[in-house]
Amino acid sequence: MDIITSPQNSRIREARKLANRKHRQATGLCLVEGIQPVLRALDNGVPIEHLIVAPDLLTSDVARERIETAVRSGTAVLRVSPEVYAGLSERDNPVGLAAVARQVWQDADRLSCEADSLFVVLHDIGSPGNLGTILRTADAFAVSAIILTGSTTDPYDTACIKASMGTVFGLNIASLRDYSDVLQWCRQKGLTLVTTSSRASQDTRQAKWRFPAAVAFGSEAQGLPPELLAAGDLQVRIPMRGQASSLNLSVAAGIVLYAMRGEDSPCV
Amino acid sequence: MDIITSPQNSRIREARKLANRKHRQATGLCLVEGIQPVLRALDNGVPIEHLIVAPDLLTSDVARERIETAVRSGTAVLRVSPEVYAGLSERDNPVGLAAVARQVWQDADRLSCEADSLFVVLHDIGSPGNLGTILRTADAFAVSAIILTGSTTDPYDTACIKASMGTVFGLNIASLRDYSDVLQWCRQKGLTLVTTSSRASQDTRQAKWRFPAAVAFGSEAQGLPPELLAAGDLQVRIPMRGQASSLNLSVAAGIVLYAMRGEDSPCV
Repeated sequence: MDIITSPQNSRIREARKLANRKHRQATGLCLVEGIQPVLRALDNGVPIEHLIVAPDLLTSDVARERIETAVRSGTAVLRVSPEVYAGLSERDNPVGLAAVARQVWQDADRLSCEADSLFVVLHDIGSPGNLGTILRTADAFAVSAIILTGSTTDPYDTACIKASMGTVFGLNIASLRDYSDVLQWCRQKGLTLVTTSSRASQDTRQAKWRFPAAVAFGSEAQGLPPELLAAGDLQVRIPMRGQASSLNLSVAAGIVLYAMRGEDSPCV
Repeated sequence: MDIITSPQNSRIREARKLANRKHRQATGLCLVEGIQPVLRALDNGVPIEHLIVAPDLLTSDVARERIETAVRSGTAVLRVSPEVYAGLSERDNPVGLAAVARQVWQDADRLSCEADSLFVVLHDIGSPGNLGTILRTADAFAVSAIILTGSTTDPYDTACIKASMGTVFGLNIASLRDYSDVLQWCRQKGLTLVTTSSRASQDTRQAKWRFPAAVAFGSEAQGLPPELLAAGDLQVRIPMRGQASSLNLSVAAGIVLYAMRGEDSPCV
């Protein structure tokens, strides 16, 4: 099969343009890079426009076999030179495997809800790295879905996909416009709304969690908007006692999810 | 007072060179940037060679007052033009306050140890952002000291100082060469050594913590070396059940420190 050696190839140029959020929105596609994220997209049945493989760079036997299987079931592959691949990659040591994949979004209203479901609401999260790290944690704690609201950044940003270790492709992702939609959605689903703030009165160690639940986190700089914070059935903080008494957002989210998935939770 | 307008000024060039790790090691200095980190260095009595202030950029009244107080007690200040400051800054929106400060290192053998002390050992941590985030968390959970070992990156890297929100200046930082030194140090201090791995047998929720303790984390890619992991009096994992079943290193460290500072801990 032919190897693409020109960075001006139209499909390569299209793939490169997916670094731009507007272009992702216009096309509904995203660029996935790296062995683990691409394999996770394949494993989750995410629609793939085409795989992009640099045979001279890709040394992983596991990845090669998985690609062959995908090709046999009809997935398109572009084979490219190391130079063309390097022009596409954001990494210092490109591994030679990427994909153009279709973004998958769920309708928040249609998400199924069980007695032990835990949803995560993310409001105005600005950093793709933070968002991806929270997605990875949400996967580790078996979160039912992630609801993005306000001006939260794009989960299909390359940096977010990378920080998520590809778990974005195994999670249910939905969006709601603002916090009033979030409150209405919680009522409809019968969810306990847990809101988080370093100034909340209730300590995560003493909180009596009730499921199904949605837990909301705000931007690192601003936290949750006061109206959303106040609407929480439970308003919790993580007990701290240092000089700074503040945690990185993705660390705080990890601790709250760990606390909610505790021994008393019906899940564990 | 004169405003420095030339980026070739010798003290500005020296400050810029502190972005380089070798230069930091040779001089024992570091470059601190941003209001919060600089104020935290001042508040903790860290020796300051000089503050670097761009009066046209610095709008915070709190910061201006704190600088005046420092000047009255003898701290040197370089006033610089916005252009000179921008050449020094790694930020998109420079705030106009930096400092050249002396690195403070403790001798691990001389660290004091109380009945409830908790130490954090970090082995081969490569990312300054991860390291800084862990320092910030360690501050929030009142960790007694951080022991850096193996090839762990420099805590006085600008990116680490930033991610730590300046808490690096309030923490005791020490280093030990390798894990055999860590084991000997734990024995000398009478510490319970807690080692962490996603494959450890004991669950953080069931672990019976004993203090004083040291908890060790390894690099994200490799984890702890087998010898150090096996030497743990307690070897713990965080219970997970997702597709990826992995957590970002600083998230994992946050959860373990939260678990160790739990209700049964003599500290809380």
